[in-house]
Amino acid sequence: MKILILGADGYLGHSLMLYLAARGHEVFGVDNFMRRSWVKTMNSISALPIADHPHRMSAFHSKFEYTPYFWTIDVGEYDQMCHVLEMVQPDAIVHFAECPSAPYSMIDANKAMFVMRNNVIGTMSLIYAMKEKSPHSHLIKLGTMGEYGTPNIDIPEGFFDIEYRGRQDMLPFPKQAGSWYHWSKVHDSNNIMWACKVWGLRSTDIMQGVVYGTRIPEMMSERGDYVIPVLRTRLDFDESFGTAINRFVCQAVIGHPLTIFGDIGKQTRGFLPLVDSMQCLTLAIENPADEGEYRVFNQFEETYSVLGLAQTVRRVASDFGIDAEIKHLETPRSEAQEHYYNPDHEHLLNLGYKPTRDMESVLTEMFIDLLEYQAEIKEYKDVLIPHIFWSGEERTAEWLK
Amino acid sequence: MKILILGADGYLGHSLMLYLAARGHEVFGVDNFMRRSWVKTMNSISALPIADHPHRMSAFHSKFEYTPYFWTIDVGEYDQMCHVLEMVQPDAIVHFAECPSAPYSMIDANKAMFVMRNNVIGTMSLIYAMKEKSPHSHLIKLGTMGEYGTPNIDIPEGFFDIEYRGRQDMLPFPKQAGSWYHWSKVHDSNNIMWACKVWGLRSTDIMQGVVYGTRIPEMMSERGDYVIPVLRTRLDFDESFGTAINRFVCQAVIGHPLTIFGDIGKQTRGFLPLVDSMQCLTLAIENPADEGEYRVFNQFEETYSVLGLAQTVRRVASDFGIDAEIKHLETPRSEAQEHYYNPDHEHLLNLGYKPTRDMESVLTEMFIDLLEYQAEIKEYKDVLIPHIFWSGEERTAEWLK
Repeated sequence: MKILILGADGYLGHSLMLYLAARGHEVFGVDNFMRRSWVKTMNSISALPIADHPHRMSAFHSKFEYTPYFWTIDVGEYDQMCHVLEMVQPDAIVHFAECPSAPYSMIDANKAMFVMRNNVIGTMSLIYAMKEKSPHSHLIKLGTMGEYGTPNIDIPEGFFDIEYRGRQDMLPFPKQAGSWYHWSKVHDSNNIMWACKVWGLRSTDIMQGVVYGTRIPEMMSERGDYVIPVLRTRLDFDESFGTAINRFVCQAVIGHPLTIFGDIGKQTRGFLPLVDSMQCLTLAIENPADEGEYRVFNQFEETYSVLGLAQTVRRVASDFGIDAEIKHLETPRSEAQEHYYNPDHEHLLNLGYKPTRDMESVLTEMFIDLLEYQAEIKEYKDVLIPHIFWSGEERTAEWLK
Repeated sequence: MKILILGADGYLGHSLMLYLAARGHEVFGVDNFMRRSWVKTMNSISALPIADHPHRMSAFHSKFEYTPYFWTIDVGEYDQMCHVLEMVQPDAIVHFAECPSAPYSMIDANKAMFVMRNNVIGTMSLIYAMKEKSPHSHLIKLGTMGEYGTPNIDIPEGFFDIEYRGRQDMLPFPKQAGSWYHWSKVHDSNNIMWACKVWGLRSTDIMQGVVYGTRIPEMMSERGDYVIPVLRTRLDFDESFGTAINRFVCQAVIGHPLTIFGDIGKQTRGFLPLVDSMQCLTLAIENPADEGEYRVFNQFEETYSVLGLAQTVRRVASDFGIDAEIKHLETPRSEAQEHYYNPDHEHLLNLGYKPTRDMESVLTEMFIDLLEYQAEIKEYKDVLIPHIFWSGEERTAEWLK
């Protein structure tokens, strides 16, 4: 299949280029390298050094014997997106080209408006270009489980049958996001749902949990014993672009306490390893939605509380002789610290998704890969403590106990 | 109270300035006069000629003995909105400053992205400026009943208690809008709901039905027998900025058939007269939401099918010796032509809202006012037939029977 990846230079995008190419698909990329500069503006780096774009492309060429077409454009530039789609006529478009950070969107008015405009208008540009130039392409859109928030009822996959005052309907499940970033993804989901209805486009909206891991087989040496540096994907640990799990591992690696937001740590989320995210995305790509169909996949493997996560990291750290302390910080966020959480995730299992890895084994690889860059992470350790408060306050979060 | 009206030059905004000033409130205005140019780009005019801004302001001064502060700025210009809010410190902010047209948003990619950006980013600029400069102001946001779409169950006011798989929660009611414009309003509603939660802002989100009418008492001569031209509000009839009811009356006035979209005409919506819209908005302003409260009012008086509406216009037209023919056009929209429709509208009634006018009496006034401008409407009669298809086709809609 011909697959166009938007955001092809990012953590997932770069990995998916390799993963799909190894399965014989023809891949095409779009990226404007903004993620690289956003992380710089957070005064941070990728904990694992990544190659620049030309070196990535030549490594891709050595491995797969072709260089993918690659456009350095903003998805929000409608005319350019039309040009790309007209030329490629992709079977599938995987849309990762958004600013993916809740804290970044909460910094100030300008950042909030930037994230909203970048994500919502970028996605509108894309779906209009699809309508005009490539209406049969299947859009795989990266959403997030965070769109749902934490309702006090089960979370279905996108839609639910309800009875209300004696009448019935199947309706979109109400979203209750918790940052401007998360709301931008909700707006995208709504816009794409409607584009499928009004124009007959086809889309799979992936409500993905937190992805973790530093490796997929396609990045590894022939014997599978180490990651080839030029093929590596990024791993962020700063407060904006790193996730709790990345941060915990980086903290353990440099002997910094693992920082749980709030005094309870029962915030619960879904998680899955990078390689299984690749598996799920490929299942969605290879089993496209029908014409006019908008379907939602909740994509995660297991749920963990943030405390459970920290304890798991602590356990794996001990295998490396690291005694990781768990400490509580006041939370900079506005979120429930204890809540019901029971999301469905049947759709991908029904398509044949088989979880291949457990968290401890993936964490072990992360420690192996990250311990090599202990000194670099230590140099940037200031990014491990949050300064971005949902309230807008400007200060450093304080320890609780 | 000090009340800042955003979109103060529009159909509702201009009327509300007069209505509130007459009740002793101190009013302030913001507008960049975009509505005037949008209607020009549709090759149309306001059926009732309206005064330019300076003349409106001097007429306001004659009537109320002060000239309101008025800023000609875009609500999306964050720094300027901060300046205005810092200076005014309004008790209430009424936000009409959006592009209010479904067809306009469906013209092409650029228009769709413009409407989305203008409305969503404009509203984000406003709520961030409120947070920074005037967090105690009560935001009255104009939404639309169109945000809900036409679900097969009753439509509550914003939120509903549901049971799902044996558990209960109160959740936002799912929205199913039918144009990019309507979706932009849904996104605004979601963003405002969240700003109230995260920052403790207070807001009333008005899901308004279709407003109709050419008069409020504050625009009338002393004896109440005619509208003073310089105090008049606009009345659009083009396919983008006119509503079905405005279009029907203008069609009847020039002897053009009343154009129902589709062969059935059972599309049903809520309606209310201009003067009662003013009454409702004033009730919301004078009974503010609590700190941190986001409340939703469904604001309409009666529901009509489009066919019922046309028949009512036809009946009133006959009082003026006009035999208005009702004809069916293929619908350019993507919408259900027959559907269940039962929205709640108790919140405003509970605050004391008393409907004062029935549709026939308001239509009678509309005929009196519009018959005076028969020649002008006739000159622009081409705008009465739709050319904007939800599918993106570019042609004129055809007669069905």
